[in-house]
Amino acid sequence: MKQPLQYKVSLKDNASFTNNALFCVGTGRMNLALRKEYHDQLMKVQEEIHFSHIRGHGLLCDDMAVYHTYEEDGEVKTEYNFTYIDLVFDDYLSMGLKPFVELGFMPEALASGRQTIFYWKGNVTPPMDYNKWADLIKALVSHFFDRYGKEEVVTWPFEVWNEPNLPGFWKDASMDEYFRLYEVTAKALKECDARLRVGGPAICGVDDKRWLTCFLEHCSQHKVPLDFVTRHAYATDSPELIGHYEYQKLRKPEDFMEELRESRRIIDSFSEYKDMEMHITEFNTSYTPRNPIHDTNLNAAYTARLLSEMGDVCASYSYWTFGDVFEETGVAYTPFSGCFGLLANGSIPKPTYWTFAFFKHLKENAIARSEHFVLTRDNDKNICGVAWNPVEEMEDKELALTFSLDLTDGDYMIVTKMVDECTCNPLRAWTNMGTPAYLNKEQKELLLDCARPQINVKQFRVMDDAAQIEIPLSSNAVCYFEIQRIYPKADRGFRPERIRGGNIMME
Amino acid sequence: MKQPLQYKVSLKDNASFTNNALFCVGTGRMNLALRKEYHDQLMKVQEEIHFSHIRGHGLLCDDMAVYHTYEEDGEVKTEYNFTYIDLVFDDYLSMGLKPFVELGFMPEALASGRQTIFYWKGNVTPPMDYNKWADLIKALVSHFFDRYGKEEVVTWPFEVWNEPNLPGFWKDASMDEYFRLYEVTAKALKECDARLRVGGPAICGVDDKRWLTCFLEHCSQHKVPLDFVTRHAYATDSPELIGHYEYQKLRKPEDFMEELRESRRIIDSFSEYKDMEMHITEFNTSYTPRNPIHDTNLNAAYTARLLSEMGDVCASYSYWTFGDVFEETGVAYTPFSGCFGLLANGSIPKPTYWTFAFFKHLKENAIARSEHFVLTRDNDKNICGVAWNPVEEMEDKELALTFSLDLTDGDYMIVTKMVDECTCNPLRAWTNMGTPAYLNKEQKELLLDCARPQINVKQFRVMDDAAQIEIPLSSNAVCYFEIQRIYPKADRGFRPERIRGGNIMME
Amino acid sequence: MKQPLQYKVSLKDNASFTNNALFCVGTGRMNLALRKEYHDQLMKVQEEIHFSHIRGHGLLCDDMAVYHTYEEDGEVKTEYNFTYIDLVFDDYLSMGLKPFVELGFMPEALASGRQTIFYWKGNVTPPMDYNKWADLIKALVSHFFDRYGKEEVVTWPFEVWNEPNLPGFWKDASMDEYFRLYEVTAKALKECDARLRVGGPAICGVDDKRWLTCFLEHCSQHKVPLDFVTRHAYATDSPELIGHYEYQKLRKPEDFMEELRESRRIIDSFSEYKDMEMHITEFNTSYTPRNPIHDTNLNAAYTARLLSEMGDVCASYSYWTFGDVFEETGVAYTPFSGCFGLLANGSIPKPTYWTFAFFKHLKENAIARSEHFVLTRDNDKNICGVAWNPVEEMEDKELALTFSLDLTDGDYMIVTKMVDECTCNPLRAWTNMGTPAYLNKEQKELLLDCARPQINVKQFRVMDDAAQIEIPLSSNAVCYFEIQRIYPKADRGFRPERIRGGNIMME
Amino acid sequence: MKQPLQYKVSLKDNASFTNNALFCVGTGRMNLALRKEYHDQLMKVQEEIHFSHIRGHGLLCDDMAVYHTYEEDGEVKTEYNFTYIDLVFDDYLSMGLKPFVELGFMPEALASGRQTIFYWKGNVTPPMDYNKWADLIKALVSHFFDRYGKEEVVTWPFEVWNEPNLPGFWKDASMDEYFRLYEVTAKALKECDARLRVGGPAICGVDDKRWLTCFLEHCSQHKVPLDFVTRHAYATDSPELIGHYEYQKLRKPEDFMEELRESRRIIDSFSEYKDMEMHITEFNTSYTPRNPIHDTNLNAAYTARLLSEMGDVCASYSYWTFGDVFEETGVAYTPFSGCFGLLANGSIPKPTYWTFAFFKHLKENAIARSEHFVLTRDNDKNICGVAWNPVEEMEDKELALTFSLDLTDGDYMIVTKMVDECTCNPLRAWTNMGTPAYLNKEQKELLLDCARPQINVKQFRVMDDAAQIEIPLSSNAVCYFEIQRIYPKADRGFRPERIRGGNIMME
Repeated sequence: MKQPLQYKVSLKDNASFTNNALFCVGTGRMNLALRKEYHDQLMKVQEEIHFSHIRGHGLLCDDMAVYHTYEEDGEVKTEYNFTYIDLVFDDYLSMGLKPFVELGFMPEALASGRQTIFYWKGNVTPPMDYNKWADLIKALVSHFFDRYGKEEVVTWPFEVWNEPNLPGFWKDASMDEYFRLYEVTAKALKECDARLRVGGPAICGVDDKRWLTCFLEHCSQHKVPLDFVTRHAYATDSPELIGHYEYQKLRKPEDFMEELRESRRIIDSFSEYKDMEMHITEFNTSYTPRNPIHDTNLNAAYTARLLSEMGDVCASYSYWTFGDVFEETGVAYTPFSGCFGLLANGSIPKPTYWTFAFFKHLKENAIARSEHFVLTRDNDKNICGVAWNPVEEMEDKELALTFSLDLTDGDYMIVTKMVDECTCNPLRAWTNMGTPAYLNKEQKELLLDCARPQINVKQFRVMDDAAQIEIPLSSNAVCYFEIQRIYPKADRGFRPERIRGGNIMME
Repeated sequence: MKQPLQYKVSLKDNASFTNNALFCVGTGRMNLALRKEYHDQLMKVQEEIHFSHIRGHGLLCDDMAVYHTYEEDGEVKTEYNFTYIDLVFDDYLSMGLKPFVELGFMPEALASGRQTIFYWKGNVTPPMDYNKWADLIKALVSHFFDRYGKEEVVTWPFEVWNEPNLPGFWKDASMDEYFRLYEVTAKALKECDARLRVGGPAICGVDDKRWLTCFLEHCSQHKVPLDFVTRHAYATDSPELIGHYEYQKLRKPEDFMEELRESRRIIDSFSEYKDMEMHITEFNTSYTPRNPIHDTNLNAAYTARLLSEMGDVCASYSYWTFGDVFEETGVAYTPFSGCFGLLANGSIPKPTYWTFAFFKHLKENAIARSEHFVLTRDNDKNICGVAWNPVEEMEDKELALTFSLDLTDGDYMIVTKMVDECTCNPLRAWTNMGTPAYLNKEQKELLLDCARPQINVKQFRVMDDAAQIEIPLSSNAVCYFEIQRIYPKADRGFRPERIRGGNIMME
Repeated sequence: MKQPLQYKVSLKDNASFTNNALFCVGTGRMNLALRKEYHDQLMKVQEEIHFSHIRGHGLLCDDMAVYHTYEEDGEVKTEYNFTYIDLVFDDYLSMGLKPFVELGFMPEALASGRQTIFYWKGNVTPPMDYNKWADLIKALVSHFFDRYGKEEVVTWPFEVWNEPNLPGFWKDASMDEYFRLYEVTAKALKECDARLRVGGPAICGVDDKRWLTCFLEHCSQHKVPLDFVTRHAYATDSPELIGHYEYQKLRKPEDFMEELRESRRIIDSFSEYKDMEMHITEFNTSYTPRNPIHDTNLNAAYTARLLSEMGDVCASYSYWTFGDVFEETGVAYTPFSGCFGLLANGSIPKPTYWTFAFFKHLKENAIARSEHFVLTRDNDKNICGVAWNPVEEMEDKELALTFSLDLTDGDYMIVTKMVDECTCNPLRAWTNMGTPAYLNKEQKELLLDCARPQINVKQFRVMDDAAQIEIPLSSNAVCYFEIQRIYPKADRGFRPERIRGGNIMME
Repeated sequence: MKQPLQYKVSLKDNASFTNNALFCVGTGRMNLALRKEYHDQLMKVQEEIHFSHIRGHGLLCDDMAVYHTYEEDGEVKTEYNFTYIDLVFDDYLSMGLKPFVELGFMPEALASGRQTIFYWKGNVTPPMDYNKWADLIKALVSHFFDRYGKEEVVTWPFEVWNEPNLPGFWKDASMDEYFRLYEVTAKALKECDARLRVGGPAICGVDDKRWLTCFLEHCSQHKVPLDFVTRHAYATDSPELIGHYEYQKLRKPEDFMEELRESRRIIDSFSEYKDMEMHITEFNTSYTPRNPIHDTNLNAAYTARLLSEMGDVCASYSYWTFGDVFEETGVAYTPFSGCFGLLANGSIPKPTYWTFAFFKHLKENAIARSEHFVLTRDNDKNICGVAWNPVEEMEDKELALTFSLDLTDGDYMIVTKMVDECTCNPLRAWTNMGTPAYLNKEQKELLLDCARPQINVKQFRVMDDAAQIEIPLSSNAVCYFEIQRIYPKADRGFRPERIRGGNIMME
């Protein structure tokens, strides 16, 4: 049984909705951006979704080979190597992506300790010499200026470090030490060009209120440059670990949003930071790259709702991550492994990929929004919307949305693109194939075929300035729909009614 | 209501079925093969279906610029220009296609009259000098030898002219004149290399029994070289013309097949020609490029049945044509125009495209066949089949095929690919869009999205060595299905039952 | 023996030079733009040279299938088909080319006579009904508005007909009839949108002064809309025909330019047309597509000089044509056939291709110009120039240009790209191969290898603010050269003087 | 002054020459094969040179993520992950390359110690458990069988470890330990399939006679499977280190060859190993990836000589390496860095790239060979050769080779492709550009333009059955030349003598 929901909407209505879904996307560490599989996945994402910025860890880690010392004439000297950074950033820019530059982690030769994080061993200790750190930042930016031009580089946001409020990411999670790093870095950037935009504290949701408040107080009191505030947000509770996987429950979307609103309020409580941009430089349902939820339709439907609301308080929200080339907990054993990506390895779109592809097409003017949909139109009065139905429990729960619209009389075409557990569920297809760990070419193509929305085109006629549009949503469905006025004109002698299967559908 | 049909099949069964569906495909005239749109369409067909040979008209027409005369020292001399033929044949070979060479029509400078056929004005009169015709044929073949090597060229079939039994295609439909043309041509070919294979009489279904009988008698009595017999076959009655379109009724498939069997019997009645290859160098439902049936699912389902039976008596059957770059009645006004192609212009697959794509995947051993399906298996006992349900009347008629199979115990995957009026019907989508004559990029992409089979992957377990496979067929459905033994092995900790939407389907 | 020529040039000098070389390029008739070989050649030209506009004949000829009539209810009705025009213009725009729309020739169903021109039979008679012609023009433009948007289409120039001053191109070369056609067409265009730009009379250099004067008088007296003036210009005397070829002598470049200046003076003599744009909608050395000169280095060197001067009086000069897909006198028998193209068939660049590629790189500020070179610099004081040495006589004549430049002290790099009869002469390579008529893949690749400029990079140091740059030019050489300030900085331990062959050249 | 050298050669002559130059090529470690830049470089190499096999280090290193342990039920268990190996090997096979599988280095979890080699830290200690090592080998091969098929995998050679005779590559350079590793590995392979081919000892030229002798004695005495012998060979003396670079002198080619002949003799001294294949699984001039010699024309000319002789005693000789994606001593600071590759980063061919490209085209029958050239012909009597002139000293030394050939009377074409310090020397061009560390797009294209052979095509006529072919060689030139009989036939009216610059050259 479907739960019916009725909405009366006028094209003249206004609804609050800010679509920042495509401002930024997350990525595995910079060194992985040298990979062919990574490039192929990102290219596909850009061709179909086209994000504006990209952010990831590890720009200054040793596998990027940036920072080196050598002895000459009895002195230790520094030399920089930007070969790999160039390869990565050239590739990003060639795909229409600007870097949202995360400055970190610490090159071994500059580090004050040996503590590392992740399978790939990023050093998370403060610099042993803050002057040399500042020199590195200035050399880096100066290189960017040379290669990409000052006017381009001043449009890139710079963020200082990642989640310093966790001791795993920043030695002892020391607040003072972070504030020092932030200050030195921000000032080094401003020395290069005052227009460069810098932000922090890049915290996750642990002790976050205190961190944010103290950080802003510190910046305010010490006149430390700050152009935007950054934090992270995830929507799951603590995990249960089984083998290579971690299982979690989702938080209520309302709770997830409240966490962000709280941050917003803290920022706005400082007169000089009121209305300052808040960037969510990482978000997703689960924060572990081993939770199968990332590969599900549930994830797509839940994320759709988040995308419809986060723009209320955030300047951007960077989905963590675009693809599954990722090594934080090691290398996945299977093509679907619960990793963060919009694409599984082999460039297979997961359902959430389509959530973003659908939000991309939303128009400038919102006319209605609820917890189940957002409806927009453009200046030509074409209407398009996205609707969703997240169902975490195992039991199915169907919805039937009906929109009463004040369309002017005439002929219309409606296109629907449906992604749900039956029609576009590559995880299930792969499971049904017996979860093969190593896909051959045929299996990969079959999964690609199982990862496409179901498209439908219908025609209808409006009389008396009113239309009823029905959108049925099975469990975890995400549906994109688009309504356009058309002016049908048949070719001379073309008679649809005489053609088997070619007749116009008036359902 | 679905009509249920039950079939009990054993993997050890043998059924008669010869799959020659991919031996040859038809094309618009040779000059069109210089076009980019033509190349793009053919490339797509080859990537997904991959025919072995291609045959079309107009190799020697003046728009191929082959035959020229000039005066020198008071004498008329001949010169040949193979520039365009090279471009066309190079392109074919680069896509894995051998030419099934149709020799015709007549260069103006060699023609005995001015009678032409089609919008593109192919001259259909006999040569004014048969020696010069023979010289032309020998120069042509000699050029092929130079460019492609003798060993390659002797694998190409050569056919003499097209439908000489119609006065439109051959002046007065003169039998004697055709026999003369055939003889001169066949001998010229054999002079080049005795291994070259030549055939005729390339007739359509008009007065065909008399033509075929006389042709074979002539060859037999005069020892004229003949390596294979060719004819055409179409499955529609006479048309009603309305504007740019012609509408027709389909013939019964049994009648269509009987026409071919009759030809077979005539050939076999000559002791020296018994079992000689018969090539259907053109076939389709309708013979007019303005019948919308070509764009329908009905065409796909009807053709599927023909493909399952024609191999019983024919060495090949060349679907007329692979694409819609075609000008016999002029240039189409709309992307769907009732033209012959497997692809509409813009490279949009019509339903019949999938019929061929499905037949491509059938395996070497047939285990069952009926008027609704063919079932095959390979040596690893993977099973695959194609099923169809043609319904010409406007009223719907559904089928439900059930196969009882003696599979050995274990886990299996079944993949189904469904093409029917609801799931894969670009003609209807285009009609619902208001039949736009000039597609923009977005419309083209939308139609491509509406022209894909619906894919499904399920898993099932066989116990007691018996499985029931059900294939439901709505009106004009064509369904491909494939059954494979699998050995599921989950990654450590992967629990489908804990993943929303990821559970294994046991339906 | 080289003739030495010395030039003293300062970076502060100004020289007159307007570079309109890339505004427009010519093409074979529109129907040929449907071809794959045509597309491939044009793509290559655009990637390396990138013209802004393209102009060619035959937009309305029957092989574009635009204009049709049919009877209905006892009435003759008209219908239009823009399918092929869309394919062509879509392709142009996708390659960054705007159409310079030439309106002609006459659809058979609208023509008043049967007179045609060329192998491809363009009808050159006036419309039998000027109202229907105006309807056609308006339907065409209205279709352009629908497909490409009004704002785009108003940036396309429209030219009425081609060379009406020749009886071959316009029945009886009737001036009155042309003025009528021009007027009807211009007004039809302005009815669509007053911003549309229209021009004529598209004449060649036969009786041209009288035609131009009368045309302008007519427009002036009858208030006929006119936005720009067009004419053609070729630089050869009358031909000697031998077999497939025509041989001619070149005119003196001064005479060629004087013809254009004369037209300029005529235009400027009308107060309302003073300084009006004059577009040379066709130019080349020879006007016949069978003169081998087009394939030579002489053509490249001679054209270089024209490109350096034509901008003095013309808003554009469209080289006739970009490639050798061309059928005015039939289909060429060999890859080099004396046809107009910058590229020979097989996409082999002829020397003149490089003349255009070199002019593309010239900078905004000219600092010196002579009959042998043009020298420019950009705002960063990088200098680049093109030099040439056309020699028509069989005897060689070498030049040695020396430039004394007031460069500031420091290190510089000079890049030279040389195209001359020895280094980049695919016609000679092909001749030496034995002039094969049908190239195989290896031969094509070899010719491509023989069709590249020879590149050289040298370093020099300037002291005392003065540099001597020497450019030696063998017969028919065209040389591009570029001088840039550099700041050499060797990697730690890199010692060129210890590396065999790696040393810096100070010649 | 050129030194003249005269050779009289008959087409009927036989010369000893075995061309195994393309059997195998070396590569940076396996993990680098995941990179896009790596793939692009290898693709280019394969398109133009097309090696058959590829060999590199690090297949089992931790960055390939193959070997893992975990605790379950109180037990330590092993699991394998072949995801990355699949990506790499799939890519190789897609480019027509078979792996020449080097088994090593040691996964950390299986290692008996912590000793590593290189910037990328390959563990070089013996397994702590030889049974687990054998299990790993068998699991690996079994996975190969599943993915690529047994018939394919048995064609891949397997080599055990790398340079165990150096303590850096194998803990303590312990011979006994290596023999144990070899034996366990060889037997594990043969258990999978007796047809799998295994070899060793993969030694370099240090204490190599003793190692080889002992290894063969050990295999012989203990009946250890051995299908081929492998060793390495480099042609330089010990280096002088300056900054990032190491400079060395070349050894005499005779000495280099003598080292290989010595190995050959040792092998042949064992009756059971007589004539056994010896594969040089690494060779180059210098063994350090920081010697600029690799980027020079000297390297190309010296290597040409080696390629002409190594086939006398070796079944293959794998140039170390195809490209410059390489990290053994860290990441290069500049595009030319003295690394091993045939291509510099940015896919810029170094001169030695052309040496291989030239050897690729040599024909089956050698007719003459000297220290300066090799001359071959095919069955159609087309002749092709490669000539070289290595000059290590800074002073120039030119050669002029003259071949007297007994060609039959007629017309011929000669193509020469010249690579020397003036015509094809990207290192010099880059030096003259000021050695920019980070190339922009324009610089990269300029260097590509400076990295092409100079091509020349001439025609000559042979009378009296004798021809003189002259090949001038400047210092470090490598020249490819090809002589073909041609049958010139001009198009009607084509008169080269009337075309400026189009005349046939008879020099």
